Amino acid sequence: MNNELITAALAEYIIEARLEDIPDDVINEAHRTLLNWVAVAVGGCKHQSVEIILQTMPAANRNASIFGRAEKTDALNAALANGVSSHVFDFDDTHLATAIHPAGPVLSAIMPLVENGNIDGGELIHSLILGVDITCRLGLAVSPDHYDVGWHISGTTGIFGAAAAASRLLQNSEKQTRWAFGLAATQSSGMREMFGSMCKSFHIGNAAKNGLMSAMLAKNGFTSSEQGIEAKRGWANVTSSNHDLSLATNGLGKKFLIMDNSYKPYACGVVVHPGIDGCVQLKNEHDLSPNEIERVDLRVNPLVLELTGKKRPMTGLEGKFSIYHACAVALQHGKGGEKEFSDTAVNDPLTQTLRDKVHAEVDVSIAASAMAIHITTKDGRSLSKEIKQVVGSLENPLGDSALDNKTRDLCQPILGKEKTETLIETCRNMTFLRDSSKVVRTATL
Amino acid sequence: MNNELITAALAEYIIEARLEDIPDDVINEAHRTLLNWVAVAVGGCKHQSVEIILQTMPAANRNASIFGRAEKTDALNAALANGVSSHVFDFDDTHLATAIHPAGPVLSAIMPLVENGNIDGGELIHSLILGVDITCRLGLAVSPDHYDVGWHISGTTGIFGAAAAASRLLQNSEKQTRWAFGLAATQSSGMREMFGSMCKSFHIGNAAKNGLMSAMLAKNGFTSSEQGIEAKRGWANVTSSNHDLSLATNGLGKKFLIMDNSYKPYACGVVVHPGIDGCVQLKNEHDLSPNEIERVDLRVNPLVLELTGKKRPMTGLEGKFSIYHACAVALQHGKGGEKEFSDTAVNDPLTQTLRDKVHAEVDVSIAASAMAIHITTKDGRSLSKEIKQVVGSLENPLGDSALDNKTRDLCQPILGKEKTETLIETCRNMTFLRDSSKVVRTATL
Repeated sequence: MNNELITAALAEYIIEARLEDIPDDVINEAHRTLLNWVAVAVGGCKHQSVEIILQTMPAANRNASIFGRAEKTDALNAALANGVSSHVFDFDDTHLATAIHPAGPVLSAIMPLVENGNIDGGELIHSLILGVDITCRLGLAVSPDHYDVGWHISGTTGIFGAAAAASRLLQNSEKQTRWAFGLAATQSSGMREMFGSMCKSFHIGNAAKNGLMSAMLAKNGFTSSEQGIEAKRGWANVTSSNHDLSLATNGLGKKFLIMDNSYKPYACGVVVHPGIDGCVQLKNEHDLSPNEIERVDLRVNPLVLELTGKKRPMTGLEGKFSIYHACAVALQHGKGGEKEFSDTAVNDPLTQTLRDKVHAEVDVSIAASAMAIHITTKDGRSLSKEIKQVVGSLENPLGDSALDNKTRDLCQPILGKEKTETLIETCRNMTFLRDSSKVVRTATL
Repeated sequence: MNNELITAALAEYIIEARLEDIPDDVINEAHRTLLNWVAVAVGGCKHQSVEIILQTMPAANRNASIFGRAEKTDALNAALANGVSSHVFDFDDTHLATAIHPAGPVLSAIMPLVENGNIDGGELIHSLILGVDITCRLGLAVSPDHYDVGWHISGTTGIFGAAAAASRLLQNSEKQTRWAFGLAATQSSGMREMFGSMCKSFHIGNAAKNGLMSAMLAKNGFTSSEQGIEAKRGWANVTSSNHDLSLATNGLGKKFLIMDNSYKPYACGVVVHPGIDGCVQLKNEHDLSPNEIERVDLRVNPLVLELTGKKRPMTGLEGKFSIYHACAVALQHGKGGEKEFSDTAVNDPLTQTLRDKVHAEVDVSIAASAMAIHITTKDGRSLSKEIKQVVGSLENPLGDSALDNKTRDLCQPILGKEKTETLIETCRNMTFLRDSSKVVRTATL
């Protein structure tokens, strides 16, 4: 592939790809990506950042739904709001090789088109696969330099995926799709300095909104560079001093990067996950109740205490940065969802008692995705578990029933039991639905 | 100034600055910046890029005017549309040290607030001065590396100026203004690769719209980093490998960078300007008519033929890149406004005859801002002019009456004679008006 033709090659791919060329396992993974995204978008819908966006951005019309809610807004603002809510718990999907959360920008951008168009489930799923592919391919091309220098890669590459998927559904021509990529390149933004503020989720919403806008403007004839990605003063060169654009096109249409997507079982940073995983397994295997536990000893990778060494968290958010709290809720509740990292959970006296029984020791021989857990019971038993490949990794992916349960935890309090079950079924069968907008109706009030 | 406090220092400055501390010459320059910007925004209002934006972006309400037009849209879309129209002729103001066009993002962002608020003329002018100051200070801090690597600096810094001016008019707190700067940092975008497409003007409109949105979101409590500009993974470090942030705060509140703003007398690239300047002067001094001219000889800086050596332009846009066409219209019409670079002008037979009489020779001893013009008349006269400091430079600024005439050329065909004269008077006296929205009413249909 000539590197001077990257934008053109990606545009041609987006326009000409055929659903019948997508293997079944890729379709299946896309169903899982869709379900996980809808679940987190519904789960985060009442967060203050979403409220502020709806309050600040006036609606041009009421054609587009906000997941988990009753009110509607216009397509661009819905893309923004849904993108924000789906990332606000940091519980969305992850392309581990690049640290990209690819579904948010793509699905937030196309849901308003799905809702207002006459789009069948196969087209929705295909657009998702293509959008995620573009996002992760560009991410690989500029990694790790781009993220290291400070770009929030989920936003900066997500806008291309959003523009690609929206261009596909809007039936843009190849030239219009090149322009859409140019418009995406020249709006690509979002910096890691914003982590810890509402702006982190804003990046996902903005990528969705501006990617959708790029496709809409291009469709109406708004011109841009046709080499926005690869030109000397285009996206890759300007935002990354080290990159390999051949990674953006190698195996295009043969290897689908959505296959490398992963889903978090726990609503916190990944370094804590092996601890929760091990505690949940020990609790279940030995039918442990909290008051049987005398002491918990962990041997952990140095990163664990560096990032999550908070002994006495005061808020739910702080709880996400406490390996002690994480193991306590795992032993108490057998899980680590968003509820287990709420302010209430952090201030539960039983959790606090358990938390103080957890001790962690650094062991440089232990990988970041691993952990050794040892529990001493009051009656003198000694229970151990070594986690080598944490659940949610590519080697040990989150199973279908665990993903369904994650969805239930996030959605039932908002949508109710019946709608949540319909939602799970709708996402898992999306490719075979004539009317893809059923997912929107099922995931809103 | 501690470089860790740049964002805070700029926010404090924006909130606490007092109009009575602004010297008269700064106020006067702000009046000129306002007039020049309104003139180009009106002049560009029918460009196709503006039409596409209005067609693509649905309006949430009709509270905000589009300069030069009758229809209204919402505040954010008006900021976008006015920003685009004001840059589309490349005829707006320039901060020469950074190549920033500072008025577009700032004034496009605040005009919807002026129109809907109860803002007096002094506050409008003060916000303009502050917004331009922030824009150009940040531009100086990251120049030349930031522009060299490929960022379109007018967009990337303009969003900060827009956020600053809008924060001031929205009466944001200091903390909210820091958040607005963080939101601006994380949306800062626009690449030079887009030059030659509609995206170039889009950058100006986007900076205005997103800067205004940043101030609005921050006012409603949307959090961001409070060190968005100077943090390790914040704006300056991420977008520029070489920068000196002390330039952003040195002399803050004492030196006002709007004093270094300049206004183009001619609607084309600056390297052509000395040729037009000299031809206009010779025409006027000798009362030359086109048919008296036998031959025109230019001695020019090498850049002139490199950038504008097109012998036979076919379109108005190509005419902007032809020193031959530029000198021909200067000798024929005594000016070089947007009309002289239209398709019609380029295809005028008399202009084409004159154009073919113009000859240019490179002389490396001649500066880019200079040119030597020699005219031989049919009756054997030999007329010469050496331009050392072209009109529109800081050393030889565009005079008030020339700026008024530029405004008339751009606005009369759209607003009519009477409104145009009122507009000139309104801008020149803005600081003393109780109701600043008069400028909006006068510059619209």
